[in-house]
Amino acid sequence: MFRILILLFLSYSAAAQTDSIFIRKVYNSALTNGRAHEDLRSLCKDVGARISGSAEAEMAVYWGQNKMKEYGFDKVYLQEITVPHWERGTTEAGWIKTSRGQLMKVHLLALGGSIGTEGLMEADIIEFKTLDALKKANPIDVKGKIAFINQAMDEQQINTFRAYGGCYSIRGVGAVEASKLGAKAVIIRSLGLPIDEHPHTGSMHYADSVTRIPAAALSTHDSDKLSLLLRTEKAKFVLEMDCRSFPDAVSYNVVGELTGTANPDEIITFGGHLDSWDTGEGAHDDGAGIVHTLEAMRILKSLNYKPKHTLRLVFFMNEENGNQGGETYASIVKEKGEKQIAALESDRGGFAPRGFHCDGPEEFVTMLQSFASNFTEYDLHVFEKGYGGVDISPLKDYYPEIPLFGFVPDSQRYFDFHHAPSDVFENVNKRELELGAAAIASFLYLLDRKL
Amino acid sequence: MFRILILLFLSYSAAAQTDSIFIRKVYNSALTNGRAHEDLRSLCKDVGARISGSAEAEMAVYWGQNKMKEYGFDKVYLQEITVPHWERGTTEAGWIKTSRGQLMKVHLLALGGSIGTEGLMEADIIEFKTLDALKKANPIDVKGKIAFINQAMDEQQINTFRAYGGCYSIRGVGAVEASKLGAKAVIIRSLGLPIDEHPHTGSMHYADSVTRIPAAALSTHDSDKLSLLLRTEKAKFVLEMDCRSFPDAVSYNVVGELTGTANPDEIITFGGHLDSWDTGEGAHDDGAGIVHTLEAMRILKSLNYKPKHTLRLVFFMNEENGNQGGETYASIVKEKGEKQIAALESDRGGFAPRGFHCDGPEEFVTMLQSFASNFTEYDLHVFEKGYGGVDISPLKDYYPEIPLFGFVPDSQRYFDFHHAPSDVFENVNKRELELGAAAIASFLYLLDRKL
Repeated sequence: MFRILILLFLSYSAAAQTDSIFIRKVYNSALTNGRAHEDLRSLCKDVGARISGSAEAEMAVYWGQNKMKEYGFDKVYLQEITVPHWERGTTEAGWIKTSRGQLMKVHLLALGGSIGTEGLMEADIIEFKTLDALKKANPIDVKGKIAFINQAMDEQQINTFRAYGGCYSIRGVGAVEASKLGAKAVIIRSLGLPIDEHPHTGSMHYADSVTRIPAAALSTHDSDKLSLLLRTEKAKFVLEMDCRSFPDAVSYNVVGELTGTANPDEIITFGGHLDSWDTGEGAHDDGAGIVHTLEAMRILKSLNYKPKHTLRLVFFMNEENGNQGGETYASIVKEKGEKQIAALESDRGGFAPRGFHCDGPEEFVTMLQSFASNFTEYDLHVFEKGYGGVDISPLKDYYPEIPLFGFVPDSQRYFDFHHAPSDVFENVNKRELELGAAAIASFLYLLDRKL
Repeated sequence: MFRILILLFLSYSAAAQTDSIFIRKVYNSALTNGRAHEDLRSLCKDVGARISGSAEAEMAVYWGQNKMKEYGFDKVYLQEITVPHWERGTTEAGWIKTSRGQLMKVHLLALGGSIGTEGLMEADIIEFKTLDALKKANPIDVKGKIAFINQAMDEQQINTFRAYGGCYSIRGVGAVEASKLGAKAVIIRSLGLPIDEHPHTGSMHYADSVTRIPAAALSTHDSDKLSLLLRTEKAKFVLEMDCRSFPDAVSYNVVGELTGTANPDEIITFGGHLDSWDTGEGAHDDGAGIVHTLEAMRILKSLNYKPKHTLRLVFFMNEENGNQGGETYASIVKEKGEKQIAALESDRGGFAPRGFHCDGPEEFVTMLQSFASNFTEYDLHVFEKGYGGVDISPLKDYYPEIPLFGFVPDSQRYFDFHHAPSDVFENVNKRELELGAAAIASFLYLLDRKL
C-alpha cells in the first residue's frame, strides 16, 4: 500500500514537473521568439479596420488563411457564412447649436446599423440621464426632437466589463425607445470610461414595429459639455450621417487545425473574432484575440506538441454586428455530428493576463481551479465561473454539457479603446500581448491533457 | 461556551463587515472623486522633471508642502537634507562612425553622475555582450577605446524587476570596470525592455582608485544597430557630453501627518520619492508613488478616519542618486527616539495593483497574508515576503523588528518608461493610478487597525 502511494505520488510529481517544464518553454517562446506582436502589427496595418462585408474584412480572411498556412497547421479551410453589410459613408458630422447661435462641433460616430439622416437634420435636443428616464418620458416632450441619453458607465465597478454590462442597452435599444416617443434621432453618451474626445461606436437594433431613426454616439467629453450647457439653456443639435445598409454579403470563418493523435474526432474549438468595427484598427477588439490564439497554436506546434484531441483554431467573422460566424459555426458542427469537447475564446483585449473563466458544468469549474497552481509564477490568479465569449456562446445551445472558457486579461484599460478610433496597434503593449498568448497556449496544453 | 463562540464569531463578522464597508468607501472615493490623476498632472506639468539639486526639485518641495496643507493634514513640515547636484548640461550627442565614413546619430543619455567629455571625444568602439565579458577582457584590447556593454534585460523573467535586478550593475559599475582596462568612456545598452529609441538614464558611480570616464546609455534600438554593424566591420564612436557635478545642495523631505488618536507616538511612515531623473516627467517614477500616498492620506482624512497610530506621509528627496532623503529620515527618527512601527513605500509605477510585499519578521508576513481576503474583489492577489523600497530601507538598520511594506503594481510596462523621456503623465492610466491609491489607503487602514 505504502509503495503504491509512493508510486502514485512520484507519478503525480513527474506529471506536474512535465507540465511545469513545458509551460516554461511556452512562455520563453512567446517572450523571446514570439510572433504575436508582429502579427498584430500586420493585421492592424496591412489589413486595417475590418467590418463585416468590407474589402478589409475580405483581406482579413485572406490574411488569416495565409498565416495559418505559413505556420504549417495540419488543415486550413474556410467556412462560408452570410453577414450584414453596413457602411459609414463619407459624411458624418454633428454640432451643438446654442440658443445664442454659437456652434460647437462634436466628436461622434454613427452606431453600426444606423440609417443616415438624408441630408442635414436639425432639431431641439432633450437630455435623459438614463435609458429608464427616457422610457418614462412624456411623448409630448420628445416628439420631433433629438433624444440624448447621457448615461455614464459606473466607474466604481472594479471590473470594467460589469460597468459596460450595466450600460450597454442604451446603445442597443436607445433608437427603438426614443423613436417610440417620436424622437427624430438618438444620440448616446459613448460607452467609454475616460473623459476624452474619442466616440465609441457599436451595434444597435431597430424594431419592425417602430420607425427607424438615426443613432450616433457622442464622445464622453462632448457629452459632459452638452449636458452642462443644457443645465442653463436650450440647444439644438445638427446632424448629418450618410451611413446605410447594403444587401447581405458572403464572408468566411477561417479555420485551422492540429489533428489529435489519440482522439482526432474530439475537438477543442478556440479563437477570437476577425472582424472589427470600422474605426481605429480593431487592435484590442479583437486583433489581440486573433493573434493570442494564432500564436498559441503556433507555439504548441513549434514545440512539437502532439495534442491528444484535435485543436481547432477559428477566426470567427461578424462578432460585432450579428455573430453570424459563431452561429453558423455552431450549427455546422452540430449538423455534422462532431464531438465538441470544449471551447475557449479571447475577446477582452491584449492586456496583462489575470486568468480564465469557465461557463459550464461544475466539474469543469473544479478542473479550471486545479490549473491555478500551474500559473502562480506567471501572475495569473482568476480561475472561476464566468463567461466564455460571444463567438463560442452558440455552442452552448447544441452542446450544453461542454465547458466554454474565456481568457481574462486585466480589464482597466479596455474601455479606453473599445470600438473607438484609439483602438490601434500602438495601444497594445508587446509583453502584455505575449503573456496572453503564452497563458492561452499553456491553458490549451493543460486542457488537452486533462480532458 | 457555545454562546462565547457565537459572540466571538459575531464580533469577528462585524469587524470584517466594517472593514469591507470602509474599503468600499475608499475605492468609491478614489474612483469617483479622486484627486490622484489631477495631482499627477500638476506634478508632471506644473513642476516637471525634478532631479535633486535642480530648480524643479525645489519647486517640487514647495508643491508637496502646499498639497499637504491644502488637504488639511494635522502637521506639515520640511526636513532638511544635503543632496548631490549634477547637471546634464546643454550638449549631449553621439554618433556611430562606420569604417566607410558613414555617420549614424544615436539616441543616448549621460548616466547620472557622469563627467563630461571635455569637447568631442572620438575613439574605436569595442563591444562586450555582458559586464562579465568586459571584466575578463585583455587591457590591450580595451585601452584608448570606448567600451560598449550590450547586456540586455532578460525578457523571459515574468516580473520585470527581476530582469532589471539581473542587469543593472552594468550601469552602476560599468565605468569603473571599463576604466580599469583603460577605456576612454563607457556606453551601456539602456536598461529597458522594449526595442525602441528611448535611452534610459540612471545612477552610476566612480571609484576613487580608478580614473573617471564618461558614461552614457544608448537606446536599445541603437544598441542593436551598433552590435549588428560590429559583426562585420570596425567602427568608431563620437561622443560629446558637458554634464558635470556641482557642490552638494540643500534640499528637503516633505512630511505630513495625521496624528494618532490612541497611540500618537507610534508612527507608521509611508510615501514615495519626490525627486526624479531629469528626462521625461518622472510620472511613473515616482510621481505615481507621490500621488498614490498623498491621495491615500487625503481619502482617509476625507472619510473622517481617525487613525490609532500617527500616519506620517513622507515625500522623500534624492532616491535616484544618493538616497539622502531616506538615510537622513531614518537617522533623524532614530536620534529622536521615535517609535516607528511600520513603513510602506510605493515606487514601482502607477499600474494596476497586484498586491503588497513585506520585508520584515515572519509574523508580519502572516499578518499581510491575513489582509488578502479584504482585497479579493479588488483583484489584488500578491501578499507575500518581498522588498519594501529604497526610501524606507534605511529604517531597517535602526528598526530591524518592524515590517517594511512595498506596494506591488503590475510590472509589465514599468521598464518601457523607467528613467526615460517617455516617463510622462500621458503614459499613466487614470483608473490604474486611482486603484493604486485606493489599495494603499485600504492597506494603511487595515495596518493601523491591526497593529
